[in-house]
Amino acid sequence: MGCVQSFRELCDRQKNTNVRLSLPAVCIVWQTAMIILFGVFIRYNEESDAHWIEHRKAKNISSDIENDFYFRYPSFQDVHVMIFVGFGFLMTFLKRYSFGAVGFNFLIAAFGLQWALLMQGWFHSLDYTDGKIKIGIENLINADFCVAGCLIAYGAVLGKVSPVQLLVLTLFGITLFAVEEYIILNLIHARDAGGSMVIHTFGGYYGLAISWMLYRPNLDQSSRLQGSVYHSDVFAMIGTLFLWMFWPSFNSAITDHGDGQHRAAINTYLALASTVLTTMAVSSLFQKHGKLDMVHIQNSTLAGGVAVGTAAEFMLMPYGSLIVGFCCGIVSTLGYIYLTPFMEKHLKIQDTCGIHNLHAMPGVIGGIVGAITAAAATESVYGPEGLINTFDFVGDFKDMVPTQQGGHQAAGICVAICFGVGGGIIVGCILRLPIWGDPADDNCFDDEPYWELPDDEESIPPVLQYNNHMRNKDVTESNFSMEQN
Amino acid sequence: MGCVQSFRELCDRQKNTNVRLSLPAVCIVWQTAMIILFGVFIRYNEESDAHWIEHRKAKNISSDIENDFYFRYPSFQDVHVMIFVGFGFLMTFLKRYSFGAVGFNFLIAAFGLQWALLMQGWFHSLDYTDGKIKIGIENLINADFCVAGCLIAYGAVLGKVSPVQLLVLTLFGITLFAVEEYIILNLIHARDAGGSMVIHTFGGYYGLAISWMLYRPNLDQSSRLQGSVYHSDVFAMIGTLFLWMFWPSFNSAITDHGDGQHRAAINTYLALASTVLTTMAVSSLFQKHGKLDMVHIQNSTLAGGVAVGTAAEFMLMPYGSLIVGFCCGIVSTLGYIYLTPFMEKHLKIQDTCGIHNLHAMPGVIGGIVGAITAAAATESVYGPEGLINTFDFVGDFKDMVPTQQGGHQAAGICVAICFGVGGGIIVGCILRLPIWGDPADDNCFDDEPYWELPDDEESIPPVLQYNNHMRNKDVTESNFSMEQN
Amino acid sequence: MGCVQSFRELCDRQKNTNVRLSLPAVCIVWQTAMIILFGVFIRYNEESDAHWIEHRKAKNISSDIENDFYFRYPSFQDVHVMIFVGFGFLMTFLKRYSFGAVGFNFLIAAFGLQWALLMQGWFHSLDYTDGKIKIGIENLINADFCVAGCLIAYGAVLGKVSPVQLLVLTLFGITLFAVEEYIILNLIHARDAGGSMVIHTFGGYYGLAISWMLYRPNLDQSSRLQGSVYHSDVFAMIGTLFLWMFWPSFNSAITDHGDGQHRAAINTYLALASTVLTTMAVSSLFQKHGKLDMVHIQNSTLAGGVAVGTAAEFMLMPYGSLIVGFCCGIVSTLGYIYLTPFMEKHLKIQDTCGIHNLHAMPGVIGGIVGAITAAAATESVYGPEGLINTFDFVGDFKDMVPTQQGGHQAAGICVAICFGVGGGIIVGCILRLPIWGDPADDNCFDDEPYWELPDDEESIPPVLQYNNHMRNKDVTESNFSMEQN
Repeated sequence: MGCVQSFRELCDRQKNTNVRLSLPAVCIVWQTAMIILFGVFIRYNEESDAHWIEHRKAKNISSDIENDFYFRYPSFQDVHVMIFVGFGFLMTFLKRYSFGAVGFNFLIAAFGLQWALLMQGWFHSLDYTDGKIKIGIENLINADFCVAGCLIAYGAVLGKVSPVQLLVLTLFGITLFAVEEYIILNLIHARDAGGSMVIHTFGGYYGLAISWMLYRPNLDQSSRLQGSVYHSDVFAMIGTLFLWMFWPSFNSAITDHGDGQHRAAINTYLALASTVLTTMAVSSLFQKHGKLDMVHIQNSTLAGGVAVGTAAEFMLMPYGSLIVGFCCGIVSTLGYIYLTPFMEKHLKIQDTCGIHNLHAMPGVIGGIVGAITAAAATESVYGPEGLINTFDFVGDFKDMVPTQQGGHQAAGICVAICFGVGGGIIVGCILRLPIWGDPADDNCFDDEPYWELPDDEESIPPVLQYNNHMRNKDVTESNFSMEQN
Repeated sequence: MGCVQSFRELCDRQKNTNVRLSLPAVCIVWQTAMIILFGVFIRYNEESDAHWIEHRKAKNISSDIENDFYFRYPSFQDVHVMIFVGFGFLMTFLKRYSFGAVGFNFLIAAFGLQWALLMQGWFHSLDYTDGKIKIGIENLINADFCVAGCLIAYGAVLGKVSPVQLLVLTLFGITLFAVEEYIILNLIHARDAGGSMVIHTFGGYYGLAISWMLYRPNLDQSSRLQGSVYHSDVFAMIGTLFLWMFWPSFNSAITDHGDGQHRAAINTYLALASTVLTTMAVSSLFQKHGKLDMVHIQNSTLAGGVAVGTAAEFMLMPYGSLIVGFCCGIVSTLGYIYLTPFMEKHLKIQDTCGIHNLHAMPGVIGGIVGAITAAAATESVYGPEGLINTFDFVGDFKDMVPTQQGGHQAAGICVAICFGVGGGIIVGCILRLPIWGDPADDNCFDDEPYWELPDDEESIPPVLQYNNHMRNKDVTESNFSMEQN
Repeated sequence: MGCVQSFRELCDRQKNTNVRLSLPAVCIVWQTAMIILFGVFIRYNEESDAHWIEHRKAKNISSDIENDFYFRYPSFQDVHVMIFVGFGFLMTFLKRYSFGAVGFNFLIAAFGLQWALLMQGWFHSLDYTDGKIKIGIENLINADFCVAGCLIAYGAVLGKVSPVQLLVLTLFGITLFAVEEYIILNLIHARDAGGSMVIHTFGGYYGLAISWMLYRPNLDQSSRLQGSVYHSDVFAMIGTLFLWMFWPSFNSAITDHGDGQHRAAINTYLALASTVLTTMAVSSLFQKHGKLDMVHIQNSTLAGGVAVGTAAEFMLMPYGSLIVGFCCGIVSTLGYIYLTPFMEKHLKIQDTCGIHNLHAMPGVIGGIVGAITAAAATESVYGPEGLINTFDFVGDFKDMVPTQQGGHQAAGICVAICFGVGGGIIVGCILRLPIWGDPADDNCFDDEPYWELPDDEESIPPVLQYNNHMRNKDVTESNFSMEQN
């Protein structure tokens, strides 16, 4: 590793960020592969196929409104907004990396969701009669979820990697995600409706491990760009708010029809509201002069949504949701104040967006809350049928009891962390190869290497331009008169 | 009152805007109180409880899709966007108060909705068998509505108060709202689906009365900041458009299933379209050179949605909606041109966002339109069952006739105005106490007192920075050569 | 035509952009006309009328959830966001035309949707028993669709016309659209769920023909403003992403209940994802240094949604959607690189937003894809009932077969192009009259002629202002000392 290190230091001065061949090549090859694999494997399921009308009659379904589309499409669209606008704009806070934030987020997500449909399809939606994956609206939601894991990881390396590295990160990330998800949900039989473990814990540690492998000791050379400007902070609030508002849809998108979706939305709504207040409190309390810090408002206000993800569909109770949100607002904000600087200094983990505070820690908290809530479930609270429905105690698992389920939930957390850390280290190694066109240390957090930038001179208000012009004239004249002197 | 005035003038020079103790204290205490009260009072209702599946079978409901969640969740999410992005970004128009606009809006709303669930729950959703409030999706919508009243009031005092004052404003505002709403909807039996009276009239006058109590005679010291810049006006259009687009959801969110929601959405869609044209017309007509004013486009285009709120669920007829929108565009824009300056000069009411033109006046117009439409209702237009359904002529009110209903509607307007003005004066008095950390006159409309601001120097385009650098050099050199002279 | 040309050149120097009389007059007169026509013609349909409850019982509909409102309202709101935020913000990319982009988009759409309800209503929703147009949620969606055609056309002339010209463009555009749509959908019996032909091909060629008629040989006088700045490109990405995310709703909003809506959403989702990758690839490949160009990311990533519009409801198959998206990303991006400059130089078509690459070409491709998919349909793929349902082979068309349908689809493309080009030339002639207050060549792409602009001097960061101040002082002093010399 020391060898690679010194080799990289050697390269650093002559770093080539030209991705003119590698980026198009990867995009075209992978997209072509997707077309072929989709041609071989993916078909419509019975609810999106034109045979639906016959299927409906055969199954005696009384109305088209019973099609799963109408149960889930509004939530799907909200999740879709979170992935593209939410994650994208949340990362625009840097003064000169807005194009990269929103543009590469777009690229990762658009590629990732195709690969996720395949990977998750093989595990969950394979029709063994004809060997095809049958997709419907729920698969689209799950693909978006899967992509979320990679976008979280992007947050840790934001501004420090090339688009080609991001595509590699995504390819492996989706693959790992699908395996991890299958183990947690199907083999271990943990429940994780909002993905506290499956999405946030995994995505968080995956990104942190990669960032650790890609540690840049001289990153302070880019410190001039590692901050926000006034308007970039307002842009980031667009991302924050769309994530915050639609999180109830995120946590309820794939829960059970009826009370399951209903309850998950309510719990998430409450947890998030509570988080806002404690985030503001801690942010003000720990700054001199009691001023609020935009970094906390943009990020920590969302921690409650992460932490209530697993338990949102359970009978967490409204006050339980408030308590979860209360704690996460405090933990996440303190994380930004103390933990992120500590991790950068002592653990060599540079976490641009602070995903450890927003996703990794609250994700683990969410897993624990889920385990406790599951273990404490009783038939009197859920009702006999409700208990079976909520925890899916059917088939091979029909003899399980809530306390067992609690143990399985806890096991899920461990799997998510292991996959995140382990996968991140392996992928980080791959990304260290000096072939991906990543930027030099003094080029980080800058759109310039990968984007055609507009010439912003015209954006200076006319008044100032005129002033500049006059001033230049004055100076020139004064020089001129001096020469005459 | 004169005494308080002079005392305040004395304080003004040494104003302390440090909220390091008060803001965290209020946030933590109130959030803790919420957790306790939610623990004691709030439970899931039968549609969000895990017993739903048994309830469904007992009530012979054929499908999960009949759960109220599927009737109202898409509208709820639209309303949620209006509250957080709509109101938040609409207020970002000031050049240096975008953090405060969107951030404090976030804080108020997140706190307010919790308190609203309790207050409205006690009045409307209390289950007398066990003394618990049972909540579902409709309660979340109503909580968002309730918060809207306080956010409207925030518009009047935008930039002139501290976050602690805003939390106090919200605590009392939600309380007053819940009482007023109970009187108007339950005791008086007025109908107000979109809240023209209950939300907009109340919220408008509540904010104006507070602003009157907090009158700042020397506010012109902040005049340099009381305007917009180009990009802040574009940010504000995000707020405008999300409010405008989702207003049909706002007015239809809690109306009757079926034709009620359908009709309310259509009426609101039409009224808003009509308002845009008359707003543009009046804005152009009253400016020299016929130029359009962004203030009008951002605000007055929404007046039609406010004014059609009460009558949206009635058989207002499509042309009726257009007429309401037509008038409100004119009235609201003229209000911005003539009334707002008049009120500031002669009535000592400083209304930062012009909520009198956007909410108070159109709200009263909406109440009147509702009263007329109700009084004019006939069985031939509504059908016998439709009439009973639309106006809820059941139970204690089963003998009411439309003309009576018109009178009740009119009474509702009066109650809303009284609660707004009266409540605002009382709360204004409380907010005048010199303990809340409000900004000095020359610190208004500025994020600086309450927010850590990024250092924006880096945002200057590199070209200009270079120019500046060279120019400084020139100047220095010229000075230097002169000294040599 | 040469005569008009020289006349216009004569006028150009003393151009009057004051729309103080014309804009208000047109707005008020047309809005009044709308009120009268709505009063005469437009009523609620049976699903939005208060008689619904009786209608429901008569038709034996078991639940309110069967009201078409619940099938289509979420999609309607998504389409609504595309029209107002999507199209509006997509056009904010110019450095000094953001007010015009988002404001005039708002004006056109608000007027256009009213006129569209009437025009489309006469053709499609007229109740012959009483001569009234009966409207419901599907009419609102279609009105938004109809407006989209005119907003596409606005893209071609963005920054070069006055608001009055835009209202004229809209009045004629909506009228032509409704006739063209009736011919294609009802007379020719082509299917076009997402409007590849009806909306995008027509709108694209309509705008290009108008832009050709309004050719400005000296437009380079405004070249200083015909570009973006950093933050205006970020604003434009808001438009791009909301269009991209909600396009599945656009293409599925008015398709058949059940599998039709479900399948259209899936196909569009996939086509768009594929487009993003090929757009990025081509954008990087054709720029020196492999840098990505924001113009391509903002626009070409959407081409897949346009091109899959017609075939989205057919059994295009998931891999088919990916292929369509793959090709369109390439074609559209190459269009921006080679075709737009070619058209401006050699064909005298100045296309500000490049609508030829985003709407016209992909629209035609979409029409062709639709024709092929329809011609290739078989009963084994669709099922006997599915085939009839999907292609609506009922009534007068019950003997049609898929190959015939393919021919009809192809005929539809031709009609759309003819109406677009022909209509555009006629309307372009009208817009050339020197009475509409259009801007002079050196005033194009500038908000200044039609908007009150904020004085942006205050937006300069205080540090720089201070520097400027000190520098001025230095210069003055140096001048002063020189005078002393």
